[in-house]
Amino acid sequence: METGNNKNASPLLTLIGAGPGDPNLITVKGVKALSKARVVLYDALIHLDLLNYVPETSIKILVGKRSGSHSYSQDEINKLIVKYAHKYGNVVRLKGGDPFIFGRGKEEIEYAQMYGVKSEVIPGLTTATSLPALQGISLTTRGVNESFWVVTGTTQSGVLSSDILLAAQSTATVIVLMGRNKLPEIAGIYKSLGRENLPIALIQNGSLPNEKIALGTIKTIEEEVLIKGVGTPAIIVIGDVVNQHHDYLFKTIEQNLLHTSYENH
Amino acid sequence: METGNNKNASPLLTLIGAGPGDPNLITVKGVKALSKARVVLYDALIHLDLLNYVPETSIKILVGKRSGSHSYSQDEINKLIVKYAHKYGNVVRLKGGDPFIFGRGKEEIEYAQMYGVKSEVIPGLTTATSLPALQGISLTTRGVNESFWVVTGTTQSGVLSSDILLAAQSTATVIVLMGRNKLPEIAGIYKSLGRENLPIALIQNGSLPNEKIALGTIKTIEEEVLIKGVGTPAIIVIGDVVNQHHDYLFKTIEQNLLHTSYENH
Repeated sequence: METGNNKNASPLLTLIGAGPGDPNLITVKGVKALSKARVVLYDALIHLDLLNYVPETSIKILVGKRSGSHSYSQDEINKLIVKYAHKYGNVVRLKGGDPFIFGRGKEEIEYAQMYGVKSEVIPGLTTATSLPALQGISLTTRGVNESFWVVTGTTQSGVLSSDILLAAQSTATVIVLMGRNKLPEIAGIYKSLGRENLPIALIQNGSLPNEKIALGTIKTIEEEVLIKGVGTPAIIVIGDVVNQHHDYLFKTIEQNLLHTSYENH
Repeated sequence: METGNNKNASPLLTLIGAGPGDPNLITVKGVKALSKARVVLYDALIHLDLLNYVPETSIKILVGKRSGSHSYSQDEINKLIVKYAHKYGNVVRLKGGDPFIFGRGKEEIEYAQMYGVKSEVIPGLTTATSLPALQGISLTTRGVNESFWVVTGTTQSGVLSSDILLAAQSTATVIVLMGRNKLPEIAGIYKSLGRENLPIALIQNGSLPNEKIALGTIKTIEEEVLIKGVGTPAIIVIGDVVNQHHDYLFKTIEQNLLHTSYENH
């Protein structure tokens, strides 16, 4: 429902990171900002329960891609932010994960600024760190590794980032976002470095009831992903720490038995 | 105040990440878990407002280092968790940032498991991603870089992680946690690669009223840190995205003027 104009409120854009999916994984600060929003522009992956924090009389618009609904271009979203901020004051841009991690939040802020709209950011839990944690995988573990590296599988040019080749040579746990469709290429890089026994996991819809996970090694993961039906969007986690997952030991024993049994035929 | 025993509750350890400092940056899920805690073991950097969510009759123990109070070893903390979980049921371990990012949370879970205590993890905002965001720095920015890398400055052996040398050759924004005292060594690595004009920031007490920030380039940052009095604990952020900070342009112009004026003497 549209509210009346509010000429007194100064135009403000608040970017909120909603976290990985579970609506309880938003921050308290994010909830407070939602409760003061006059307009909310939300992405497709946002849990709809979060809209319950928004006043009933505020405007709520889905701007992301969801089947059957119109999806807005980045340029259209930028213009909507400016239009509503000047008309109603407080506009919230609600994004999955964190708005500053492959989220294009900075572009929205810069566009808004050009048109006199101030902004603030409320960080959210990025899927890169929170989904492994929820699976019992500690991205850094004393004595095992000293860093973690988060890289996008989908660069602006469409080719795989060359950073992955450097990351694959480090002790880093590597997390690839938006890389599900590049899995064969990514696995190929690790194979070329002789690291085919390195543990790897793919997680789709993490933190939600329809979560799917595939566990394996660089060698076995493509088969596992097909068996488990892990689609997009999914995150990829690569590194020795993945073997901390409670199903990992069982899974690798099962895979070894399977491969032995194939070899015997 | 100590509560009576509760023989009916099954022993459970809940690890909660409290986020970077501002008590509003904990998750809703974290708040709900605090409100059900019978015992809370909290770190020194935890904001005391968070303890208001804990029932008044529950036990609250500071286990981290804070001046004037006893600090517990990791082994003592592990034993306290097991003792209280068996005695009272629901034990919360409240840690700064995220419990699985250089947080030793996994060690506590594994120890608890050996003594029949189940566990769950509620991820928190790591300082590595949330503090740059709060400063307007987007760790990844389209067209600028394709990854970010989080590394500890303090490894188990005490030497700087060799991962930093690989990271310094990538497009990654590099975030060093617990590296304040290794700043000269870290800057040295970047200088040896000819990257002395790369932007860098140090943030101490991020998200809190006593926050301090030093901005500069690899070349100027050590001087800036002294001028601003940035101490420990602080995070280090290195990469072109640091120039997004609203003070950065002003700061670099000022530094150039200063250096030019020195050179004229």
